[in-house]
Amino acid sequence: MRALVLDERLQFRPDYPDPRPSPGEALIRVRVAGICRTDLELARGYMGFRGIPGHEFVGEVLRARDASLVGSRVVGEINCPCGACRLCRVGLGRHCPDRTVLGIQARPGAFADLVLLPEANLLVIPEDLPDEEAVFAEPLAAALEILEQVHVGPDARVAVLGDGKLGLLAAQVVARTGARTVLFGRHPEKMAVVRGAGIRTVLAGTDPELGPRPFDVVVEATGSWAGLEDARNLLRPRGVLVLKSTLAASANLNLSWLVVDEITLVGSRCGPFQPAVRLLESGAVRTRELIGGLYPFERWETAFREAAAPGAMKVLLDLRGGC
Amino acid sequence: MRALVLDERLQFRPDYPDPRPSPGEALIRVRVAGICRTDLELARGYMGFRGIPGHEFVGEVLRARDASLVGSRVVGEINCPCGACRLCRVGLGRHCPDRTVLGIQARPGAFADLVLLPEANLLVIPEDLPDEEAVFAEPLAAALEILEQVHVGPDARVAVLGDGKLGLLAAQVVARTGARTVLFGRHPEKMAVVRGAGIRTVLAGTDPELGPRPFDVVVEATGSWAGLEDARNLLRPRGVLVLKSTLAASANLNLSWLVVDEITLVGSRCGPFQPAVRLLESGAVRTRELIGGLYPFERWETAFREAAAPGAMKVLLDLRGGC
Repeated sequence: MRALVLDERLQFRPDYPDPRPSPGEALIRVRVAGICRTDLELARGYMGFRGIPGHEFVGEVLRARDASLVGSRVVGEINCPCGACRLCRVGLGRHCPDRTVLGIQARPGAFADLVLLPEANLLVIPEDLPDEEAVFAEPLAAALEILEQVHVGPDARVAVLGDGKLGLLAAQVVARTGARTVLFGRHPEKMAVVRGAGIRTVLAGTDPELGPRPFDVVVEATGSWAGLEDARNLLRPRGVLVLKSTLAASANLNLSWLVVDEITLVGSRCGPFQPAVRLLESGAVRTRELIGGLYPFERWETAFREAAAPGAMKVLLDLRGGC
Repeated sequence: MRALVLDERLQFRPDYPDPRPSPGEALIRVRVAGICRTDLELARGYMGFRGIPGHEFVGEVLRARDASLVGSRVVGEINCPCGACRLCRVGLGRHCPDRTVLGIQARPGAFADLVLLPEANLLVIPEDLPDEEAVFAEPLAAALEILEQVHVGPDARVAVLGDGKLGLLAAQVVARTGARTVLFGRHPEKMAVVRGAGIRTVLAGTDPELGPRPFDVVVEATGSWAGLEDARNLLRPRGVLVLKSTLAASANLNLSWLVVDEITLVGSRCGPFQPAVRLLESGAVRTRELIGGLYPFERWETAFREAAAPGAMKVLLDLRGGC
């Protein structure tokens, strides 16, 4: 099969060996895969990952023990827990210490024609949901994780920092609660996608004239530690700061303000797939406009270059032609 | 009056001008004052404070509008809010942006014979509570703030990092909930003070054989950013990390693990005085053994040197002789 493999650097292999399912695993033919910021960080050494990256995908099940899955289009929860440990037993399988994570940790990912996942991880998607929208299930689930962890009341004031893919999804998800949501970004054309529907957009560096530190909740989705410092000027004392960025590099930080202002900082990662698919199915969240490009798999180098460009929208790889 | 004044450096002034109360303020003769880690950080430039430091004290009210206060021994809440702003109106006066803070921010502190505080800040202490115990009201309130912010259930597993004054108080407060509490420290003789009463003590660097990352809650009270990294090996995913240290210096940190493990980090500062005085009155919390020394005010240099020494216990200044 075709595969992108990260060793010293990312390389395209036209004849990589096909994967062989273990018991309980389904064999899936990848149709569309998304390039995530985490993939770019992995290539920079984050997590020390080696192998096939890629964790945002839509595919078709080729082989599975559950016959009803075969032939279905699916998306897949990327965390594969052991199912037996202390954390798995209390429903925290996404944090199982022995988990593998699709394309991130000890499990080959979806930048390949074929991929394996436990059948329990798969979610069949509705027929009328196109691949190009369904592929947003994983990042939309990550945005929904904010509401899973933090109570955002309908009168809350929420700032989302960063108009990248995650920021644009997070703002939409948060605004649906009724919360007064302000998206801070650097790209007017990107923010235009979500303007309205309860979301106000503010160009970073301009003054929204909201008064001093007006927000109850700030979602940091800039993909930079600088966002953490920006939050300081926006978040009220005793407010909640949701941290979404995982970065390979350290930074020189002074966290004393979190103590002085008694901020609650909530690290937030992967989220629930089922509500993500429900929201995509209902058309409640805009995703089409978040797509920056759809490239045939062979043009992966162009795709990665575009995904790494400042202000890039979601770049997708189209694997439907091959295999 | 006598006063310690921080300008370029800390200096003793035998004839500093007496303070003059504004309306609503009481004039208090300081009896005993405690040296806190924050005082040492202030001297290093933290908060840019200039003037008289000192925020842990017991005193006697000399003058007040409320006649019932005059002659009473009191402790005092150190935050002086405006009473009118958005945060004050919702009960978050300790976070009022226009507040002054005794000996920390725009308000002369208690390392002086006389100090001023709004009458509303004062709490009369029981007659049979000695000065040397009552002076722990402020740090004990800071320890109680942990329970104010974080729900510690009776079956929780809690680690307290640091056997300084705050760590020793925090461990005692947490253990009273029934939680399985482990104190990690470097000084067996200090930890011996709180051993028992539901508190297990572990010498840092030794293995408590509790299994991988067993704690639901970790309280960081080491006074060093290194404690933040230590917490990583102790705290379970989705656990709560209470951060107590305010430090002048920045540090090179990578917070990605907070995101990956979806840790909730809670910045925690000043706490409620009334329950602190109640606990001191009932004798439920050990404080006497936490005192490293009681020095006449004139011997402040020795006192500060001892307070700054590694592993120092609480050092108190005795002002009862002077004025």
